[in-house]
Amino acid sequence: MTSVPTPCPLCQDSGGLLIAQTPSWRVVRVTDTPAFPAFYRLIWNRHVAEFSDLGPAERQDCMEAVARIEQLLRQRLQPSKINLASLGNVVPHLHWHVIARFEDDSHFPNPIWGQALRAPRVAPALDLDALDRALREALG
Amino acid sequence: MTSVPTPCPLCQDSGGLLIAQTPSWRVVRVTDTPAFPAFYRLIWNRHVAEFSDLGPAERQDCMEAVARIEQLLRQRLQPSKINLASLGNVVPHLHWHVIARFEDDSHFPNPIWGQALRAPRVAPALDLDALDRALREALG
Repeated sequence: MTSVPTPCPLCQDSGGLLIAQTPSWRVVRVTDTPAFPAFYRLIWNRHVAEFSDLGPAERQDCMEAVARIEQLLRQRLQPSKINLASLGNVVPHLHWHVIARFEDDSHFPNPIWGQALRAPRVAPALDLDALDRALREALG
Repeated sequence: MTSVPTPCPLCQDSGGLLIAQTPSWRVVRVTDTPAFPAFYRLIWNRHVAEFSDLGPAERQDCMEAVARIEQLLRQRLQPSKINLASLGNVVPHLHWHVIARFEDDSHFPNPIWGQALRAPRVAPALDLDALDRALREALG
């Protein structure tokens, strides 16, 4: 198994701008990838590495919350695509990336971890505060 | 929205080596990424673009099948990490990547879509036929 960084950063820190939380999980906005501003993460609070470390009811709770984030992003932003991923190769503490993608963003149609194809998107500035509030309400 | 390739390749073709299927979804092994031999995809049979286009019961069915694939790969291969992703930027027909990752694979800890860090893994050859059979049984 991958050696877990000690201490695990997602056990020590929120992992982003905290938007909403339950006893089981929290949702944060990722603020260090300006080319992809509508980028949220659902982080499972308990330290587990893999999705299948959760029980079936926990997995359902987790993915219904992921789906609610996706629905809110679709309603508010009409993105070209939503990207969902649970990788955790660097920080093996279960977290789901939920990323709104646009045809004119820097990497589309490549994954955000792939090669950039153009300069970062010059789009009407997103009102991220309003998006955060709407998401908090949708998850509340 | 992304323009859907016409005809959608995942409506026309299995999308890989068919391992198992139900009326709702099929699981295929991805055979065109030799650096990542233990790479399966769950493809939703109906043409929908996004995870949240499914209803709650369909999402649960989908992700429990993804979890079963993950569990089987963990049991059989003891990978360093499992990577899960639903991207679909190129083919916006809902499909989930389930990839067993190893610390000495060509890209680890980068995502498989990122930069290669070393030559492809020279590992004991996986018995992919046996893996496929075990997966078929686990999903059966």
